[in-house]
Amino acid sequence: MAETVRVKRETLEKFCAEVFTHLGVPEDEALASAQVLVAADARGIESHGVGRLWRYVNGIREGVMQPKVAPLILRSSPLSLVLDAQGAMGMALSKKTMTMVINKANKIGSSFASIRNSNHFGIAGYYTEMAAKNDMIGICMTNTAALGVPTFGRTARFGTNPIAFSVPASQGRMFTLDMATTCVTRGKVEVYNRENSPLPPGWAVDTKGQGTTDAAQLLEDMLYQRGGGMVPLGGEGELLGGHKGYGLAVLVDILTAVTSGGDFGKSVMDSAATSARVCHFFGALKIELFRDPEEFKNDMGQLLDELEQTEPAAGCNRVYYAGLKEHESEQESHKLGVTLSTKVAEQLRGIGAELNMGIPF
Amino acid sequence: MAETVRVKRETLEKFCAEVFTHLGVPEDEALASAQVLVAADARGIESHGVGRLWRYVNGIREGVMQPKVAPLILRSSPLSLVLDAQGAMGMALSKKTMTMVINKANKIGSSFASIRNSNHFGIAGYYTEMAAKNDMIGICMTNTAALGVPTFGRTARFGTNPIAFSVPASQGRMFTLDMATTCVTRGKVEVYNRENSPLPPGWAVDTKGQGTTDAAQLLEDMLYQRGGGMVPLGGEGELLGGHKGYGLAVLVDILTAVTSGGDFGKSVMDSAATSARVCHFFGALKIELFRDPEEFKNDMGQLLDELEQTEPAAGCNRVYYAGLKEHESEQESHKLGVTLSTKVAEQLRGIGAELNMGIPF
Repeated sequence: MAETVRVKRETLEKFCAEVFTHLGVPEDEALASAQVLVAADARGIESHGVGRLWRYVNGIREGVMQPKVAPLILRSSPLSLVLDAQGAMGMALSKKTMTMVINKANKIGSSFASIRNSNHFGIAGYYTEMAAKNDMIGICMTNTAALGVPTFGRTARFGTNPIAFSVPASQGRMFTLDMATTCVTRGKVEVYNRENSPLPPGWAVDTKGQGTTDAAQLLEDMLYQRGGGMVPLGGEGELLGGHKGYGLAVLVDILTAVTSGGDFGKSVMDSAATSARVCHFFGALKIELFRDPEEFKNDMGQLLDELEQTEPAAGCNRVYYAGLKEHESEQESHKLGVTLSTKVAEQLRGIGAELNMGIPF
Repeated sequence: MAETVRVKRETLEKFCAEVFTHLGVPEDEALASAQVLVAADARGIESHGVGRLWRYVNGIREGVMQPKVAPLILRSSPLSLVLDAQGAMGMALSKKTMTMVINKANKIGSSFASIRNSNHFGIAGYYTEMAAKNDMIGICMTNTAALGVPTFGRTARFGTNPIAFSVPASQGRMFTLDMATTCVTRGKVEVYNRENSPLPPGWAVDTKGQGTTDAAQLLEDMLYQRGGGMVPLGGEGELLGGHKGYGLAVLVDILTAVTSGGDFGKSVMDSAATSARVCHFFGALKIELFRDPEEFKNDMGQLLDELEQTEPAAGCNRVYYAGLKEHESEQESHKLGVTLSTKVAEQLRGIGAELNMGIPF
């Protein structure tokens, strides 16, 4: 287990916001971006948290991310909105867009938005929970740089393309599913590579499209686009359902990029310095379309209880429902501070020092 | 390979429709039901085709399925519709409901419906393609009898709970993803059991929640609800993403049953004679909400081309996109007739003889 430190959530948010304002991001958008980033760490999703701050710093410096730019409205209706982000920061724009989606849904019942030419937006579940807090079912997706290989193929054609849904339940609880549609993300391969461990079989294929456990070779082949990559949820071939994860990943490309006229598939590529420009999708459905929200949330509560009370398998302690682990982490972070690895804390101090900022942790 | 016969699609539809009318289903609904059923066989999805006709016959005879009943409207808005099917036949009601959803979406931009207390509705992709033919993104889900085991659990808490999406593309093509959210369905286990073969590892868990390959024992344990069952898409535990398939399965329960006030989770149970009453969800989003439909379909065409042209893995012939295999099967069935196993053909002749019907194949 890596060494960790605990930092107060507000302290971390303020620090990240200051980094963004130093780089030219307007104050309110800097804070919005910082809040999304820190929410990931608070929920225990460190892969999407402040450990990525350097990527945003690089993104702004390289011009991939535009700290101050107005998105173009491509289409707008009472039910929908399509934007060209023109390279805006993904997080602040996504928060604004989800707010607009919620407002439209409040008036008419449901609403959807897609955005092209945007940037990495942190955790998709952040935006879906905004809708759930308003008695709506929240939907969010984003495409990402191509690293996933179609069933029976050998070259990357889609990203980790996450899908998120949030649904409100009684007692302030929430069901939040936020999942990559590949079996695992590249981040996990990097961990195995650092530890010099072979990958678990079933995560990735090599340049011939055949199962591989060689993390170092895989990362190199993906970097130089020689072929190979991550397999979709369900694994290699069709035996365990890999064609289903493949279909879900393509669906994300459709809803995010084809609806907005943005880049999809293999044309979405990261650089060494930062992430590719990407496309997002947001949706909200009012519970009232279907039922009285209180009755709905009571039944949701019963559903979540029944899942949590499932008898655990031999050797297992507990059965979870989607979002439960993250919500428990968030409560703990609220009490004890947000957990950072000492390595990430060091990275943040480095960024602060470089920008001549005070460092409050 | 089992022996097969070919029957003209219209002949098969007419025969099944006649069986339904013999059992008291009004003529138009009988034909609608037959069309959905035969569409499955025409597409090569024999698990959901006329091989299940006996289940519908039993369902009607046992009163689980009501051949002639008016659904109750529980809620209706310009954007939505919630019905209590009162045990109606799933297929005819679903076709009617998807038509209403499409009509509402045509006027306002998007629409959603959920139905409780309905019955097995055949293939979900049939309804989503109705929307795609109208330049909409079609969505359909249904819950089914509990046989899927939550991640880290040992007892069934959700069904195979399929999700379907259809999206139109250029040249009359379509992306249709229609997938169970469990790794595989019970039908596949039954095939292994008949052949006395061990199951592939990663499909199912035993009464202790631990991986099993014993098909006979698994089927018996599931039948008597002793525990054990199918694992979600992504397999046992979290290593290959089983918690994601689990989350998707629960999402289906939410959208179908919690939105309609119907049965969810473990309370949905098949009987020996026929299937459980279930809940459905339908949705349609007009492409025009986002983009000019022709531009959209052209980009969709490019996406599908790029996927199909992915270089195949060593030892593989071809890369598909979701729906392609089924659409090719359908074209072949159109030319050569629908393929039935001789066993299923025999079953149909038995049903026809019992009802004193002429048997045209």
